Amino acid sequence: MQNILLEVPVGVSGRHVHLTREHLQTLFGPGYELTKLRDVVQPGQFAAKETVTIVGPKGVLEKVRVLGPLRSYTQVEISRTDSFKLGVNPPIRDSGDHEGSPGCVLVGPAGVVTLKQGVIIALRHIHMHTDEAKRYGLKDKDLVTVQVGGERGLIFTNVLVRVNPNFRLEFHVDTDEANACLLNNNDMVQVLTPAAAEALGLVS
Amino acid sequence: MQNILLEVPVGVSGRHVHLTREHLQTLFGPGYELTKLRDVVQPGQFAAKETVTIVGPKGVLEKVRVLGPLRSYTQVEISRTDSFKLGVNPPIRDSGDHEGSPGCVLVGPAGVVTLKQGVIIALRHIHMHTDEAKRYGLKDKDLVTVQVGGERGLIFTNVLVRVNPNFRLEFHVDTDEANACLLNNNDMVQVLTPAAAEALGLVS
Repeated sequence: MQNILLEVPVGVSGRHVHLTREHLQTLFGPGYELTKLRDVVQPGQFAAKETVTIVGPKGVLEKVRVLGPLRSYTQVEISRTDSFKLGVNPPIRDSGDHEGSPGCVLVGPAGVVTLKQGVIIALRHIHMHTDEAKRYGLKDKDLVTVQVGGERGLIFTNVLVRVNPNFRLEFHVDTDEANACLLNNNDMVQVLTPAAAEALGLVS
Repeated sequence: MQNILLEVPVGVSGRHVHLTREHLQTLFGPGYELTKLRDVVQPGQFAAKETVTIVGPKGVLEKVRVLGPLRSYTQVEISRTDSFKLGVNPPIRDSGDHEGSPGCVLVGPAGVVTLKQGVIIALRHIHMHTDEAKRYGLKDKDLVTVQVGGERGLIFTNVLVRVNPNFRLEFHVDTDEANACLLNNNDMVQVLTPAAAEALGLVS
């Protein structure tokens, strides 16, 4: 297939929360530490046993998983489906970019955090190791086109490539994107060559 | 834009139910008739004031809208997101094609219906009037490629065209598909020319 640059395994991101140490302690109590439930694909990252409740102006999402390790910012990543239930209108953003994003209320067993901002819908992206990026002629922040096969197949344009020596190859989509084209974890998708993408006038 | 065959307005289908007269009477009582809440885009079809509860092995969807008029089959159209909540695994299907689809329980104010089958995820499709199909060189059951613009843009391959003199031009997607690319009702999407679709090796 001369249109295919490389194949990438899929990771479907359900709604989840990243916490600062300060917010962890407010929600779960002084001196509290996250407990690892399981590793996720990206090295060093893990799903924690802890969950929180997200409260918005119109509704609630219960048992939302906390992802570790702790970060320098608290961030709530939900789908657009979730956003209608909560009654918030989050932008599509890369991690850590919270400018103009809405807030929400987080509730844990020991307390409540009122966020002024930090609710986003994650921008779909490919995690890629530096060596792989070099091999395929890609660099950090490139945009590529990704093809998904099958009866509900589609092509994602404007897919952000994030390159880092700590990353493992993985195409991150949220549950709306996965359900639109029937993707599951570890399914393979195809990154098109720049020439194939340009043939349709797509960003590549 | 030489790649564009025509533009089509979007209709986002939320979860809904079509009922037979027999099931309407079981759920709402003998002699019951649907009450129109509002017309929908397709001529003669309407959203009814009546709602039902859908019960599956793992969960419940409440206040699911009934669409009228009554049909010769009862059909439950949900998203893949909904299917995980209910705990069923419906196929992607055109209306009326229930072979091998799962069932569920419907609950109304007057009674309960246990469906053996009829739960589907709707196959995305374009409703098109016969005159428009002729103008654009398309016929019933053709498959076309549809482009959605914007920051979460994508291209839907294998989009079914349904041609009928009673249809009004409309691209029907479900809420997962709409939320994956930020579509709202009445947004415009673009059907690619066969040549543009073939340039990427897509079904057209």
